[in-house]
Amino acid sequence: VNMSKGTVVLAYSGGLDTSCILVWLKEQGYDVIAFLANIGQDEDFDSARKKAENLGAKKVFIEDLRSEFVEHFILPAVQANAVYEDRYLLGTALARPCIARRLVQIAQKEQAEFISHGATGKGNDQIRFELTSYALYSDVKVSLVEKAKPVLFNSCLTVLTVSKNDIPLPITPKAPWSMDANLMHISYESGVLEDPKCSAPTDLYLMTKNPDEAPNVPDVLEIEFKNGVPIKVTNVKAGSSKDKPLEMFMYLNEIGGKHGVGRIDIVENRFIGMKSRGIYETPGGTILLQAHLDIETFTMDKEVRRIKQGLGIKFSELVYNGFWYSPECDFLLHCINKSQENVEGKVQLSVYKGQVYILGRESPKSLYNEDLVSMDKQGDYDPCDASGFIRVNAVRLQQKHRKWHKKYTK
Amino acid sequence: VNMSKGTVVLAYSGGLDTSCILVWLKEQGYDVIAFLANIGQDEDFDSARKKAENLGAKKVFIEDLRSEFVEHFILPAVQANAVYEDRYLLGTALARPCIARRLVQIAQKEQAEFISHGATGKGNDQIRFELTSYALYSDVKVSLVEKAKPVLFNSCLTVLTVSKNDIPLPITPKAPWSMDANLMHISYESGVLEDPKCSAPTDLYLMTKNPDEAPNVPDVLEIEFKNGVPIKVTNVKAGSSKDKPLEMFMYLNEIGGKHGVGRIDIVENRFIGMKSRGIYETPGGTILLQAHLDIETFTMDKEVRRIKQGLGIKFSELVYNGFWYSPECDFLLHCINKSQENVEGKVQLSVYKGQVYILGRESPKSLYNEDLVSMDKQGDYDPCDASGFIRVNAVRLQQKHRKWHKKYTK
Amino acid sequence: VNMSKGTVVLAYSGGLDTSCILVWLKEQGYDVIAFLANIGQDEDFDSARKKAENLGAKKVFIEDLRSEFVEHFILPAVQANAVYEDRYLLGTALARPCIARRLVQIAQKEQAEFISHGATGKGNDQIRFELTSYALYSDVKVSLVEKAKPVLFNSCLTVLTVSKNDIPLPITPKAPWSMDANLMHISYESGVLEDPKCSAPTDLYLMTKNPDEAPNVPDVLEIEFKNGVPIKVTNVKAGSSKDKPLEMFMYLNEIGGKHGVGRIDIVENRFIGMKSRGIYETPGGTILLQAHLDIETFTMDKEVRRIKQGLGIKFSELVYNGFWYSPECDFLLHCINKSQENVEGKVQLSVYKGQVYILGRESPKSLYNEDLVSMDKQGDYDPCDASGFIRVNAVRLQQKHRKWHKKYTK
Amino acid sequence: VNMSKGTVVLAYSGGLDTSCILVWLKEQGYDVIAFLANIGQDEDFDSARKKAENLGAKKVFIEDLRSEFVEHFILPAVQANAVYEDRYLLGTALARPCIARRLVQIAQKEQAEFISHGATGKGNDQIRFELTSYALYSDVKVSLVEKAKPVLFNSCLTVLTVSKNDIPLPITPKAPWSMDANLMHISYESGVLEDPKCSAPTDLYLMTKNPDEAPNVPDVLEIEFKNGVPIKVTNVKAGSSKDKPLEMFMYLNEIGGKHGVGRIDIVENRFIGMKSRGIYETPGGTILLQAHLDIETFTMDKEVRRIKQGLGIKFSELVYNGFWYSPECDFLLHCINKSQENVEGKVQLSVYKGQVYILGRESPKSLYNEDLVSMDKQGDYDPCDASGFIRVNAVRLQQKHRKWHKKYTK
Repeated sequence: VNMSKGTVVLAYSGGLDTSCILVWLKEQGYDVIAFLANIGQDEDFDSARKKAENLGAKKVFIEDLRSEFVEHFILPAVQANAVYEDRYLLGTALARPCIARRLVQIAQKEQAEFISHGATGKGNDQIRFELTSYALYSDVKVSLVEKAKPVLFNSCLTVLTVSKNDIPLPITPKAPWSMDANLMHISYESGVLEDPKCSAPTDLYLMTKNPDEAPNVPDVLEIEFKNGVPIKVTNVKAGSSKDKPLEMFMYLNEIGGKHGVGRIDIVENRFIGMKSRGIYETPGGTILLQAHLDIETFTMDKEVRRIKQGLGIKFSELVYNGFWYSPECDFLLHCINKSQENVEGKVQLSVYKGQVYILGRESPKSLYNEDLVSMDKQGDYDPCDASGFIRVNAVRLQQKHRKWHKKYTK
Repeated sequence: VNMSKGTVVLAYSGGLDTSCILVWLKEQGYDVIAFLANIGQDEDFDSARKKAENLGAKKVFIEDLRSEFVEHFILPAVQANAVYEDRYLLGTALARPCIARRLVQIAQKEQAEFISHGATGKGNDQIRFELTSYALYSDVKVSLVEKAKPVLFNSCLTVLTVSKNDIPLPITPKAPWSMDANLMHISYESGVLEDPKCSAPTDLYLMTKNPDEAPNVPDVLEIEFKNGVPIKVTNVKAGSSKDKPLEMFMYLNEIGGKHGVGRIDIVENRFIGMKSRGIYETPGGTILLQAHLDIETFTMDKEVRRIKQGLGIKFSELVYNGFWYSPECDFLLHCINKSQENVEGKVQLSVYKGQVYILGRESPKSLYNEDLVSMDKQGDYDPCDASGFIRVNAVRLQQKHRKWHKKYTK
Repeated sequence: VNMSKGTVVLAYSGGLDTSCILVWLKEQGYDVIAFLANIGQDEDFDSARKKAENLGAKKVFIEDLRSEFVEHFILPAVQANAVYEDRYLLGTALARPCIARRLVQIAQKEQAEFISHGATGKGNDQIRFELTSYALYSDVKVSLVEKAKPVLFNSCLTVLTVSKNDIPLPITPKAPWSMDANLMHISYESGVLEDPKCSAPTDLYLMTKNPDEAPNVPDVLEIEFKNGVPIKVTNVKAGSSKDKPLEMFMYLNEIGGKHGVGRIDIVENRFIGMKSRGIYETPGGTILLQAHLDIETFTMDKEVRRIKQGLGIKFSELVYNGFWYSPECDFLLHCINKSQENVEGKVQLSVYKGQVYILGRESPKSLYNEDLVSMDKQGDYDPCDASGFIRVNAVRLQQKHRKWHKKYTK
Repeated sequence: VNMSKGTVVLAYSGGLDTSCILVWLKEQGYDVIAFLANIGQDEDFDSARKKAENLGAKKVFIEDLRSEFVEHFILPAVQANAVYEDRYLLGTALARPCIARRLVQIAQKEQAEFISHGATGKGNDQIRFELTSYALYSDVKVSLVEKAKPVLFNSCLTVLTVSKNDIPLPITPKAPWSMDANLMHISYESGVLEDPKCSAPTDLYLMTKNPDEAPNVPDVLEIEFKNGVPIKVTNVKAGSSKDKPLEMFMYLNEIGGKHGVGRIDIVENRFIGMKSRGIYETPGGTILLQAHLDIETFTMDKEVRRIKQGLGIKFSELVYNGFWYSPECDFLLHCINKSQENVEGKVQLSVYKGQVYILGRESPKSLYNEDLVSMDKQGDYDPCDASGFIRVNAVRLQQKHRKWHKKYTK
């Protein structure tokens, strides 16, 4: 009689890598529970379930986390204007804690001591999975698949060969890059993309049209925000609208995708200090970022904005590095959410040929004051005050100049 | 005999406002020297000279500051990735200290005690002009035109009427907004644009084509950087290239303009605490910002980048607020310049329908290491190290979790 | 019949300057309401009331704001570890918004359109008074006493001479410096102290003993915190304790004063850009700062602490500059307060000869884990993990080294 | 014939732990070179050399790094006002890269592939040693002593017992805590100190007198700075002075030690996320920090100071975490050094009973302007400017107030 070494909950993707890991874990003597999260990727969940069962999973959990992903992860990132290194909208980084949280909940419910996943040791995702797991289930153990990889893949391929009648192996040659898809984005990296000077193939993108194939007529949207999150998206010409988070986000993906919005090709710095090249398409997220930036600046006090901008940058780094579930991220989420109290109103924008154009905005909470700012009206602003303001600001500069005479004017 | 009250150097634009100020200053008993800087705006400098002379300017200086503007103001801003409030590329804010510096030099050379300008008391430009002036010429006095404005404009219109045979008054009705143009951008504000929810008219833009009228074929550029500034811009298909700062920048404006790049419609926070709506087009600057962001991340250490990002944000605020000539901006310029030592290499990009797409990059100084990052090669990276790395990073999270058990996982 | 120009509420101190202002305002045709706040300064409030009445104040309000000052101003500053420019504990800056808030409330209740105060135009206090006033009562007008000062003092001295039988003028020669006293501190500046290289006279200090005259035996205190504020102060040897905010703070002042704690001599940067020399004694506040720093680091997550440290520095600048009542300070107060949730426990310290020595601390909420940190026990910390942690942290450094070989080691 | 596994350079302290490691490394088949740095600790270097030779070291290097430690590590930290978590002056953290740099230079010169040290896996020092080593010698390997420790200590004790006639084993019972001493400080931790609520024994401290045993008469020093570092220390009463970095620092240690300056008892956050309790005495460093803070604020522009304060905090974290030799620390050192250009002048201070009191300061480069700041003179400061300055600063606050009427004043 073979004693089980314990139960592992495996973050199963349905693909070759995690199928191999599933088989290998069984061979090593573990009971394996496969968990496959639907976070919006294009996947045949039924056949993935069958596959996992055929490969020997004791249980298979397939769960739709899409609404949770949008509401608890994407929307807080929108509030934060979360962008890593000025460009990356964090599509993968936001999905990982959402998946890992559920993974851990299943592990706890099923009294599994172990978790496992297919993320490689060189990337960010191993870190994101495992930090979340340790943070939420401090005694969990992570199966060290990494070490076993060379063995694993031989072993696994044998098994897969043996069982080949039952398991639909990918027949077509694998794309010469790897990708990660979810509701927010698809990322592409590795393979031919590793050469940072070679352009991405034009047929790479799956979520967005090439801008030159995009329609010649823009879509005009109105996005309404409350507390810094969208509550209604209206297609102005079509007259249709959405007001549930998941539906709104999917609709923004549809419009953004149709017009080729949100493609970037970047080199980024991984948490572990390597530079890597990634190509991303984030159609709906890009539209939301632009719209939120606009309504936020319109309604938020200038100095609160400056402080919050710094918190948002910090938040983005933490999310990228896998610290969504951490005391500091918790603290930042709280502070950022507080800053959004008056971020409310409507933004009009058009989406056209890869670009988002803000057209206008309005808000019951805006601090914008047309009378005050108008050059044609005095409002209650005395222009002489400006002279005093400037002279006081200049006191320091004049002191410096007198001390270091002619430093600049030579 | 009328004694002069002293000499004023007036930042003269050739337009109605500063023409009025010129006349009024003369009436007040000042000798007026008119200074008109060519910073790339579309202006008939000869007729402006004639106009100023006819209005009674004692001397008229018209100087081409375009190269200086590009080399000493725009390019340092490129090194800094200077963007105010996440969106505005600071086109006007960068031009002001360039103009004011020369204004002050002329005042010092001509032994003028006073300077004057046409910038209004509600905007940022009065502050930028005057802070620069005080910083570089601490004893200068600024003629307080502001208070006199109501009187000024009646008085001035009379004079202008009297001399109307000589001075070409603008005949066509003024555009229902105000604009500020230079080599880097054109800004549009006031008038009908003051209502933040009304879209800008489509015929507003002068530097950039409407994207829907832009060519259907992209231009592909290669921009070569050294020390964080462009040293060569090549049109890959045309095979032509530019390598002098002013020429490069003008060429980027041409390409960006042709493809409708760099348009934004924003509400921003002025230094004096008002929110104002501005529309900007910054074609060449937008291309350079994207290219510089790319080569910088490719060549700069991750942690240096984080620190430098913060310095760049601070720098942008200072420039916006008029503190280009200040000890702190001087310090930041030095630090940012230091950070650019290895920002060197070539970025390929395409420009199409309002958008800039990075295609690839290469650099002799890059810290990118294909072997290290490749998922297919181990390099000298031991995947087990990642587990240790993660577990140490998790120590703190586990502690917290043990202490605050089940806070998140409920 | 003389028509009143309106009603002014004057922040009255009982001293010569504001007495002059009171008289002058009356002469100008205002009805004057004198407001004198008790914020812990040493003052004969009854005779101040009489004096103001004799000088012609229509009403006199004297209010004890000490508890409010401690609870709503000093304690939030303790939570923030508020220190300006690394040294100044903000005693005056914290009192100003407390006084000005009440001033404004009285003005609103009494339907006064004007406020006035005696703070001079070169210091920070004018700014603090007036910013608070505008922030809380946007339509208030500030009587511009400043311009009238030369006239004012002649006029006023005449009046005071005339009425000299009734008003006790200061007889003793004024100290050759100015001071500002409240419950938190006394500041000394101006006069002979303006020379930054001359030592302060040893008889300057009124709140604290000279350390060489302080007792030769320390007092040992235990301060208990909850939510980052002290809830109980116990004198360990004496066995006595206090637990009301005002009483605790006064007791800490007593102990700190007795042992000469909290004296500093600094040059600081005023908001308006001048450097000024100030001497401060802040006995109780200094003890609380040290104790709070200790319990905070003991109970707060490391990374939350880093973020909060930055917020505290920003907060201190804002308070110094007079922005207590501002959207950004409001936001920071909220965030900082949130960070204090678990700042709870007891700190033991001794106070001796000008110094505070932390002796130990304990907390039910601490993240300190003796087992984990002990060099003698392994806890669940695997030392090999540290090697992995280090090697991953080194990836970036090695890359750099390989690229820039021998840069450092020559 | 036994083939060597290679050569290890061991950071040898002369104590039991590294003696054991030396023996164990030899047993494992390595050639061992012992390197002992003199960084100011109290040690019998001759007998340590003999001990290492007796234990089988192939070569022994003992080098005096004290001047280098002061000039290249301590003084840059003084420029930065380097303090970790508001309290710790980084004495150990600064010494590690100084030692490790030389260790690596020896390894390179001796063509050793390995380095080793005695720092434990739970502390910061392993990280500091190893990061420096990898940064300066990217291909170095670190002998993994850690794993072998249980074995190691048995094995080692046997050897030591065998060779006990030759090697003076410590006879007196080890102090019930561990300490690390160098020129800058002594740290105490572990053992009985691990209980954070127990006071440190009064006989713990070796560098500083107990304040109650310190002299009843202060020493008065004048410290002269140039470029932000001390260039002369004068005892004002004694009339003696020092002007070489090492001598100055040793003299400040002597004076600080005599008066009990620089003792702290803190809980700090280690890089690896544990909280640990440490007790430190840093006599000379504490005096220098206070003096530098004073002369810096006196001579540096206010806004440069704010930026530099942030850089200094970042620098302190990096040094604490072991990143002295990193691109980002290199960058910060450069920036901070630049900020010190005008940090020049003399600070007078007295040292008494554990405390440093600043008495005054003077500088040819100060931006302090007595005429400008004086309340008795107008200088060229127009008090009306202050009103304009305030009203412009209030624009934003009034807007907010009008919008959110009565939020604060209820």
